[in-house]
Amino acid sequence: MKMLINVPETVVADALRGMAAAHPELTVDVERRIVVRRDAPVADKVGLVSGGGSGHEPLHGGFVGPGMLDAACPGEIFTSPVPDQMARAAAAVDSGRGVLFVVKNYTGDVLNFDMAAELAEDEGVQVARVLVDDDVAVTDSTHTAGRRGTGATLFVEKLAGAAAEEGAPLERVAAVARQVGESSRSFGVALSACSTPAVGGPTFDLPPGELELGVGIHGEPGRERRGMMTSGEIADFAVDAVLTDLRPGGPVLALVNGMGGTPLVELYGFAAEVHRVLAERGVAVARTLVGNYVTSLDMAGCSVTLCRADEDLLRLWDAPVRTPALRWGM
Amino acid sequence: MKMLINVPETVVADALRGMAAAHPELTVDVERRIVVRRDAPVADKVGLVSGGGSGHEPLHGGFVGPGMLDAACPGEIFTSPVPDQMARAAAAVDSGRGVLFVVKNYTGDVLNFDMAAELAEDEGVQVARVLVDDDVAVTDSTHTAGRRGTGATLFVEKLAGAAAEEGAPLERVAAVARQVGESSRSFGVALSACSTPAVGGPTFDLPPGELELGVGIHGEPGRERRGMMTSGEIADFAVDAVLTDLRPGGPVLALVNGMGGTPLVELYGFAAEVHRVLAERGVAVARTLVGNYVTSLDMAGCSVTLCRADEDLLRLWDAPVRTPALRWGM
Repeated sequence: MKMLINVPETVVADALRGMAAAHPELTVDVERRIVVRRDAPVADKVGLVSGGGSGHEPLHGGFVGPGMLDAACPGEIFTSPVPDQMARAAAAVDSGRGVLFVVKNYTGDVLNFDMAAELAEDEGVQVARVLVDDDVAVTDSTHTAGRRGTGATLFVEKLAGAAAEEGAPLERVAAVARQVGESSRSFGVALSACSTPAVGGPTFDLPPGELELGVGIHGEPGRERRGMMTSGEIADFAVDAVLTDLRPGGPVLALVNGMGGTPLVELYGFAAEVHRVLAERGVAVARTLVGNYVTSLDMAGCSVTLCRADEDLLRLWDAPVRTPALRWGM
Repeated sequence: MKMLINVPETVVADALRGMAAAHPELTVDVERRIVVRRDAPVADKVGLVSGGGSGHEPLHGGFVGPGMLDAACPGEIFTSPVPDQMARAAAAVDSGRGVLFVVKNYTGDVLNFDMAAELAEDEGVQVARVLVDDDVAVTDSTHTAGRRGTGATLFVEKLAGAAAEEGAPLERVAAVARQVGESSRSFGVALSACSTPAVGGPTFDLPPGELELGVGIHGEPGRERRGMMTSGEIADFAVDAVLTDLRPGGPVLALVNGMGGTPLVELYGFAAEVHRVLAERGVAVARTLVGNYVTSLDMAGCSVTLCRADEDLLRLWDAPVRTPALRWGM
C-alpha cells in the first residue's frame, strides 16, 4: 500500500508541521501535539477543546478557530491522545469562564478526557464534558461501551462553538452541546477498508462485491455485510437506520459525509439520494453539508448524520465560523 | 471496483441533483448541466464561466459563487462539455459587461469553448478567453497540444473572480486571469490510478511500489515512473520541477492539492515538506491552501501549484469568496 508519507512513525508530527505552515492563524505545538487558535485564550469566552485519534481529518484540528473549537489534541492514528495534552490545551484556552471537553464515545478517549478534567480542575480550570454517541449502527462495539461517536461531533463542535463565541456561560454551552448530541444520529457504510501507516495495508478484509453496513470510523464492524448496493439503496438503508432512532418533528441539519476515499462527485450523487429518501419520509432538510469531514483515512464509503434543529440551533449553525475546514461569514 | 453510484450513465446528473439539494444559493440546471450563482446576472459585473470534464470536483461547480465563478459547465466524466452549455451559461451570467471563459488547455475544451464564444457573440455577448496551461510535466500530451491545465485553474478562477466582483471591466479581468496563468506552474504525482464509472476499474496500470511523476489529472502519463519515494523526496522532485520553469522574485501562493484518494493527514504532511523545500530554495510562501481541489476521482497522489503573487494578487486572494468549496470573508 503506497502512502504519501515519510515514515509511519512521523505521520502525525509531519501533518502538524504542515498545519503550522499552512495556517498561521493557528498555534501548533508539534511536540506536545496541541492545535490552538492563535488568539486564545479569548477574553470572557468559554473554551472548547476536543481531540481523539488522528486519521479522521479534518476532525478535530481542522475545526479549530473562531466560532468552533479553541483547541484540538490529536493522538496517534486511531489512538486516543493522552490526558496531559488535553489538560495543557484546557489551560491554554481558559479565560476564567471554564472549558468544555467534547469527547467522542470511545473507551480510551473517555478515560483520558476524564483524567484530563481532573488535572485541569486541579489547576483551577472549571471543566464540563459532553459525550458524543450518535452512531446507531451498534450498541457497544469493539472500541466502546455504548454507541460510537462519529459525524455528530461536527454538529456539536459547530453549534456549541457558536454559543461560546456569542459569550454564553459554560452551563449554557454544555447544554447546547448535550442538546445537539441527543438530537443527532449517524449511520456509516464502508465500500473498502482503510489502511493505516503502521499496518501498511488494509486493516480489515472486505471482499470485492461486498460492503459493510454500519461501519465505524476506524473500520470497526457494523451490522452486516451485503452484496454491493446502489447509491439509492444505500441511502434508503442509512437514512432509515437513522430515522428509526431519531424522530424529527421538524427540519434537520444533514451531514452527507465521505469516509475519505470516495470522490466528491459520488458524494454529491449520494446527497441527492439522501434528500430523496428524506422527502419520501416527510422530513424537511434545513441545511446540508456534503464533503469529507469525519473520515477514516483512505476508506471508501460514506455516512449520514441528521440533527433535529430548532430555530436556535439553525441560528447557531448559520453563525460565522473560520477554521481550516469550515468557514463562512467571517 | 465498488463505487457509490446508481449506474455509470447517471453519475454526473446525480451529482448535479445533489448540488441542487445541498446548495440553494446556486441554480442548477440538471438537464442542461449548468451551475449558476442564483443572483446571476449580477448587475454591472463581468461574468466568469468555466467548465470541463467531470471527475475533478470540486472544480468547477464547487467554485461557483460570489467572488469566483458565475457559472460552470460540467461534461461527462473526463469529457469536455459541449458548446451549447457554455453559450447558455454565458447568456445566463452576462450583465452587458461581457463574459470571461476560463479554459483548461485540453483539445476538446479548447475547441468547444471557441465554438461557444462564437455562439455567444452571435447572441450579442462580448466574450474573452483565457487558456490555463500550467502543468510543467510534459509539453504536448495525450490530450493536449502544449502544456496541460491543472491546479492553476483554481488561482485563475479565484483571482479573476475577485477582480470581477470588484467591478473591473472585461479587459482588466482577462488581464488578471492571464497574469495568474503566466505566473503559475504545477506538477503532479500519482500513487495509484483512478477508476472511472464507465470503465469500472483503474484506467491505467501503476504497479505496486511505483509512482508516476508528472501525472495528468486524467491519469495521463507523466515524465517517468520510479520506485516509491518518501513524501519529502516527492516534494523535492515536484517543487524543483515547478521552480525550473517558474522563477519567483517574491512570495508565492501555494496550492498543495490532493488528487482525491489521499487522506488529508498525508496531504498536510506533504505540505510541510513542500514548505521545507521552498524555504531551502529561498522562496517565501505568502498563502497556502491544502486539500482536494483539483482532483482525479479516487486517484491517490498530489500536486503542487505555485503562483508568483504581487501585492495586487495577494489582495485579490484575500478578497471575500462564497462558494461550496472555497469560502471566506462573507
